[in-house]
Amino acid sequence: MSDAQTAQTRAIVMDLHRAYREGDAQRVADLIHDDIDWIIYGPKHVFPFEGPRRGKKEVLEVLAAIGECFELKRYEHDILVCENDRAAVMSRTAFVQRATERTLSLRLVNFIRIKDGKIIEFREISDTFDVVEQALGYHLSVPSIAG
Amino acid sequence: MSDAQTAQTRAIVMDLHRAYREGDAQRVADLIHDDIDWIIYGPKHVFPFEGPRRGKKEVLEVLAAIGECFELKRYEHDILVCENDRAAVMSRTAFVQRATERTLSLRLVNFIRIKDGKIIEFREISDTFDVVEQALGYHLSVPSIAG
Repeated sequence: MSDAQTAQTRAIVMDLHRAYREGDAQRVADLIHDDIDWIIYGPKHVFPFEGPRRGKKEVLEVLAAIGECFELKRYEHDILVCENDRAAVMSRTAFVQRATERTLSLRLVNFIRIKDGKIIEFREISDTFDVVEQALGYHLSVPSIAG
Repeated sequence: MSDAQTAQTRAIVMDLHRAYREGDAQRVADLIHDDIDWIIYGPKHVFPFEGPRRGKKEVLEVLAAIGECFELKRYEHDILVCENDRAAVMSRTAFVQRATERTLSLRLVNFIRIKDGKIIEFREISDTFDVVEQALGYHLSVPSIAG
């Protein structure tokens, strides 16, 4: 309903991903609402930091766990759509897997909702089959599922 | 820039997914721009209808191929964000796999851009690791990739 609210939402998303790129953990933490409702969709048994979390403390633990496994190299917006308190963004990202020094390239989608100038709802989704294969460093043996 | 344009974009996304639900293939076809730029992100060797396509003819072939494998049972919007000519939508969907009669439940994300009242750009992304496992009917053997 409000162009000003939409502009604030856009600014917060830009700020979050700038803070990711710059490794500004304090700024990321400042942008997270105490009552955040957070889900990274994906296989929790492969990436233990995936799945739902509730509240700022749990989310900061997730971000720290991701940072232990991966070093962010790239986070560029491909598509950014904002409306009032909601944003959706598809980004091209790259991470170095610290254990192997290999680079993983992936598209990440974030759906974000803003409350009180902070992120109160966060959903992340990616092409996890591809991400798992990149992280493993080999192709999974899976038959074609046509027809 | 325009509330009217945003409202039109929202109406087209609602119409597309209504047409999906009702199996209204003619209406879906009417909503697709001749020059559509289309990508479903995912493993093409598992689901041959995934990957990039260009133009209405190729996209209608993809939709027909999906319909041969899966019967849509549910397509409900969870989050819908529209701004001018762009929309992003996260949906809860369910499909019956015709070959096995099993039901797959998945979140689908669409990023859509509108031109001339039709869909000119389409990106679909999902938690493909989960989708592949559901379609196979068993869990893939993959080690934890922490640390």
